[in-house]
Amino acid sequence: MKQIAEIFSQGEEIVCGQTVDSNAAWLSQQLVELGFTLKRHTAVGDDVDDLVALFTEIAERADCCICTGGLGPTIDDLTAEAVSIASGQPLRFDDQAFADIQQYYARRNRVMPPANRKQAMLPQSAIRIDNAYGTAPGFALRFKRCWFVCLPGVPSEMKNMFTSLVRPQLLQGFELQPACLVSLRSIGIGESAIQQCLADFDVPAGVQLGFRAAPDEVQTKLLFASSFPEQEKRDCVAAVADRIGDYVFANDGLDEAQGDLLDVVSKAMSRKSYSLALLETASQGQLAAKCLGCDWLRRVEINLDWGRNTGAGEVGGGDLLPIAKIWAEQLKAREQTDFALIQLFSGSAEDYRDKDKAIVLYNALATPSGVVSTQLSAYGALKTKQNQAALFALDLLRRYLQNKCL
Amino acid sequence: MKQIAEIFSQGEEIVCGQTVDSNAAWLSQQLVELGFTLKRHTAVGDDVDDLVALFTEIAERADCCICTGGLGPTIDDLTAEAVSIASGQPLRFDDQAFADIQQYYARRNRVMPPANRKQAMLPQSAIRIDNAYGTAPGFALRFKRCWFVCLPGVPSEMKNMFTSLVRPQLLQGFELQPACLVSLRSIGIGESAIQQCLADFDVPAGVQLGFRAAPDEVQTKLLFASSFPEQEKRDCVAAVADRIGDYVFANDGLDEAQGDLLDVVSKAMSRKSYSLALLETASQGQLAAKCLGCDWLRRVEINLDWGRNTGAGEVGGGDLLPIAKIWAEQLKAREQTDFALIQLFSGSAEDYRDKDKAIVLYNALATPSGVVSTQLSAYGALKTKQNQAALFALDLLRRYLQNKCL
Repeated sequence: MKQIAEIFSQGEEIVCGQTVDSNAAWLSQQLVELGFTLKRHTAVGDDVDDLVALFTEIAERADCCICTGGLGPTIDDLTAEAVSIASGQPLRFDDQAFADIQQYYARRNRVMPPANRKQAMLPQSAIRIDNAYGTAPGFALRFKRCWFVCLPGVPSEMKNMFTSLVRPQLLQGFELQPACLVSLRSIGIGESAIQQCLADFDVPAGVQLGFRAAPDEVQTKLLFASSFPEQEKRDCVAAVADRIGDYVFANDGLDEAQGDLLDVVSKAMSRKSYSLALLETASQGQLAAKCLGCDWLRRVEINLDWGRNTGAGEVGGGDLLPIAKIWAEQLKAREQTDFALIQLFSGSAEDYRDKDKAIVLYNALATPSGVVSTQLSAYGALKTKQNQAALFALDLLRRYLQNKCL
Repeated sequence: MKQIAEIFSQGEEIVCGQTVDSNAAWLSQQLVELGFTLKRHTAVGDDVDDLVALFTEIAERADCCICTGGLGPTIDDLTAEAVSIASGQPLRFDDQAFADIQQYYARRNRVMPPANRKQAMLPQSAIRIDNAYGTAPGFALRFKRCWFVCLPGVPSEMKNMFTSLVRPQLLQGFELQPACLVSLRSIGIGESAIQQCLADFDVPAGVQLGFRAAPDEVQTKLLFASSFPEQEKRDCVAAVADRIGDYVFANDGLDEAQGDLLDVVSKAMSRKSYSLALLETASQGQLAAKCLGCDWLRRVEINLDWGRNTGAGEVGGGDLLPIAKIWAEQLKAREQTDFALIQLFSGSAEDYRDKDKAIVLYNALATPSGVVSTQLSAYGALKTKQNQAALFALDLLRRYLQNKCL
């Protein structure tokens, strides 16, 4: 049976937006990997009524809830009090917790402020969770259906306590069946076009299909139940990848993670000790910047005049692909590299700025076995087009290295 | 009377932790500024029953709720359907929304996939919120106590729609007493150092002080109650800015927004028709890429060998500032620009990669009135150092243009 889990974050700074709640995402990933079904994240501020109401709700509908924040020494830290009110039990003074807090200050040659005594007050039935990195101990207790685990909001303390103490407790206390997530990573094709490719694909029982659009790629996600047979899993991934086609540059979750587009290109370039020379126009340094730390990038030129002063960017597209190809051969010969990549574009400076207008990108790659090229349109706001321009150029290299049809 | 607001995020990727929900924080800040009292954030996955339950709960307890996500064309995008079930009204086909989606594809010379038709289905009583940047229109409707506003989850689309369309609607539809938020934007100084600068500053009653660290800047935020007198507000901002010092490059919220570091530099360069030539090493194209669309950038060179093949990056720092200054003069003379900016660094490739080691950046700027320079350390992961390198170089130009001490 699936175990339902929730995340509960406390803090005025979260609910008012001064802090982005990255704890919730980190904890959710941990719980999904353990085999929990994540149902909700909730954040509320430092108000005891709001906290009591939320504990009471969650106690009825979840099997496990990880709470962060509200364990500090100040008056707005209300988690233990709210749990005690909600679950109808008094707070008790925990001698060991108090000794640990005193020792924390003693080791730092500091006097414990009186306010910290409050952190040793835990709900009657709670088990203490020691905090090796700070003053706030955590605690866990059952309240109705739900096993509540309360941890401090400081990410480093919370993560350490979860990994070393909470995770083993959960594995022991719950019957869990960890699921397996496989992501197919693609570039150059949108979410809805992928869905069309998969329209006639019957998703097997025990598999959940999802999509995620990120700035640099679209991910097609397959979540397999723990009982799903290994070979059928591989067949299912292969069938989906096949339908999406050569836009797929990597998959994550089957074997070793392959990484993002640059990782895939970089591994292939390094494996064969290949080298690249690059001329950027439309992306204006963005591709070079992405390649920071890649030793195979040997030479970068940025042509700012293209499409600006000379008006060359406004030239009709017909003649640009041949020009890009010739320049690629010339750059490769001049720099003595294995590859040379030329990026040209057509479209005026106004087209580039206008989110409703496209620019057309002409990429040519001189390789050890001739020149290959692509011609693609980039859309959207200025920075979106720029990023597309950098990625399309890099993807031409990826396609050549992966022997994908050009 | 205070108006209660909540944030509702939809998406399996949020509830399972693959995506950190930064939309919720951004929207909360906007609503706090408008004068709402923020009570909860909730995120649920792509499950229609969970969505219906949450809409129904929120409808009873909040005056306004901003929802993000679930407006895409795919089967797991369920917001409109869930709202329609929860509020007991059918979906209707919105002709204008459909025409807009078709036009979105037509402008891109692409055929609209049939799946996108779904995005034109809105709940009967909803008003449409146009999306100028994507295919998913948003919508808003009243359900019981609450005014629900549903927006796409893509941050750029969501933010644009909120700012241009939703914000004015909320100001009109609710009796709000907007607070006034003034942000002092700084670069080159950390959050805790700023806090130290302000240690002896008495924050006046009616003002809330906060900080936000972003990748490109640190913002010191002063939230003034709506009744706070104008002149005292200006005095308070000036006093805080004065304490932080010349790290402050702009303030937002007092008069016309001054924008980010590049905006500040770009306005000053354009006003005087200045031109710049640039040599990048450590940032490897990142600064050029940031300057896309800036006509005052006339020439970019990227030196990949610096700090790599030649080992020049490992040279001790003592001699680098003089070299950078000479090169700046030479580049300015050769390119006949008003300014030339040279970026050098010391530190090996290993130091650059190691998040626990620093590299030292030497920036020299040749100006119409001599050469100015800075020497600064960059810390953190590879990409963090690269971004710092780009920003520090740009900030030298900003300091010269603003006549800040160098």
